[in-house]
Amino acid sequence: MDIKQKIEKANEEAAHRLTIGEPVLVDIAPAREVIPGMQDKMITHSGPPIEWQRMCGAQQGAIIGMVIYEGWAKTPEEARKLLEKGAIRLEPNHHHQTVGPMAGTISPSAPVWVVENKAFGNRAFCRQVEGNQQFGDYSDQALQGLRMWRDVWAPTLRKALHTIGGLDLKPLITKGLQMGDELHNRHTATSSLFANAMAVAIAQTEFANKGEVIGTLKYITNHELIFLGLAMAAGKAIADPARDIEYCTVVTAMCRNGVEFGIRVSGLGDEWFTAPAPVVDGLYMPGYSANDAALAARPKRR
Amino acid sequence: MDIKQKIEKANEEAAHRLTIGEPVLVDIAPAREVIPGMQDKMITHSGPPIEWQRMCGAQQGAIIGMVIYEGWAKTPEEARKLLEKGAIRLEPNHHHQTVGPMAGTISPSAPVWVVENKAFGNRAFCRQVEGNQQFGDYSDQALQGLRMWRDVWAPTLRKALHTIGGLDLKPLITKGLQMGDELHNRHTATSSLFANAMAVAIAQTEFANKGEVIGTLKYITNHELIFLGLAMAAGKAIADPARDIEYCTVVTAMCRNGVEFGIRVSGLGDEWFTAPAPVVDGLYMPGYSANDAALAARPKRR
Repeated sequence: MDIKQKIEKANEEAAHRLTIGEPVLVDIAPAREVIPGMQDKMITHSGPPIEWQRMCGAQQGAIIGMVIYEGWAKTPEEARKLLEKGAIRLEPNHHHQTVGPMAGTISPSAPVWVVENKAFGNRAFCRQVEGNQQFGDYSDQALQGLRMWRDVWAPTLRKALHTIGGLDLKPLITKGLQMGDELHNRHTATSSLFANAMAVAIAQTEFANKGEVIGTLKYITNHELIFLGLAMAAGKAIADPARDIEYCTVVTAMCRNGVEFGIRVSGLGDEWFTAPAPVVDGLYMPGYSANDAALAARPKRR
Repeated sequence: MDIKQKIEKANEEAAHRLTIGEPVLVDIAPAREVIPGMQDKMITHSGPPIEWQRMCGAQQGAIIGMVIYEGWAKTPEEARKLLEKGAIRLEPNHHHQTVGPMAGTISPSAPVWVVENKAFGNRAFCRQVEGNQQFGDYSDQALQGLRMWRDVWAPTLRKALHTIGGLDLKPLITKGLQMGDELHNRHTATSSLFANAMAVAIAQTEFANKGEVIGTLKYITNHELIFLGLAMAAGKAIADPARDIEYCTVVTAMCRNGVEFGIRVSGLGDEWFTAPAPVVDGLYMPGYSANDAALAARPKRR
């Protein structure tokens, strides 16, 4: 075989592996219990590797939030000092079979979705979508969302999920796509179907605290983006078996950290190929412009 | 004003009334408790008025099913005799602020959705969608669906609905339409959203029998047509205030009984305008043809 044939064969294999993926939600657990390589005083984040100093404002804000949430610092200033002297280990989610929405930050006590690709036995993890801290907000109100996930919603869903032994995600995804979801910004249908399934699981489980059960049900039945974390973990679980195929040119990861956009290619191992993230020419709140944009655009001007 | 202006003004008023309707599910109750004019030994049905002898096979079958379900007869033969001698009163749903899917049969103990149009205070009723008896199947298996509704699903949902005091249907309908539902044959989204709302209500309610609660949740979270009955009751509740407007030419009801298609017009009171129902040129099971069709087509050849 010449190189062209080798590449074609390798890519066919990758496509085959992507096609037969069978993502199943098997657990909702604290990161430290399940994410390979997660350590104390470690925070994982979105995108290709990036050191604290080069991070954009939103990413830094989200990391400050996790430091306070974990109790490693009491104030944003304290957190910033710890981060500046390198006392908190920062690593990309993708180095830990993990993904996360927006800043995507995960710390040891944060609950993550655990999705197993039953066709290959590999697992992938994703943090919860809570809508505030993930965008860089480290106010107490934003951190309250993380605490509710850790203390109430995740333990309740975890117990119920163990009752039913796991939840096949492909049927929910298939149905949701036909109901208008695109599984990035629109998860209305899959979130509703997921809540349906978990409502039955919750009813089949004994709970001591009925208030927490009702609170969890109210949260999940009204959270139209809850499935985003599940879709992301499912995507990662499906994509990872396509990694490390010799000669394969298929892109197995695409992500951004607010400064750079990065990809990984199946046949090229752990290497990251990065480029400056483009400026987002979007709609801004009054008084703001592209000059203030961080997130998926360019770093905040300092 | 000339007649044309009077008609135009009347039709504007009808359009206004249709637009401001606010359907709210306020109860799920046995027909005899809530449907005006419902009596013992009475069965209401779809479409314009029709006597037993002229009904198509499917409609007759559904009525035989209700007679056995109510315990008025033990066998189909017994039921048929009662019906032939006029011992069971048959009336159109539309004469009782009521609608029903397919044959649409309702008897005193059958649970119905109770939808109130909060903008006008009128109520409308619709029977449950159970998928078998409503098509004319009077087998014991088909009647089991009616019994489950009467004995388990409706009482459970009723109690939970009373806990939350009612459920606004317009928000579910608005969202569901944007998720691909057309609210006739496709109710996947609204059914899922309805199940989520009821799951929260069920969790907030004390039940003695947990098995019945789980059974009800499993049923409603997997019943993709459950919202059909709610959509129909909502439609009827919205349309009824547009009835009886002098000079109004708006059609306020369209329905069929398997033999005739009928309409009612706002300015023309209780009168029905009927025409023979057309033959359905559809896809038939092997061995069957349009000659066997009843339902919404022409009467079965005898």
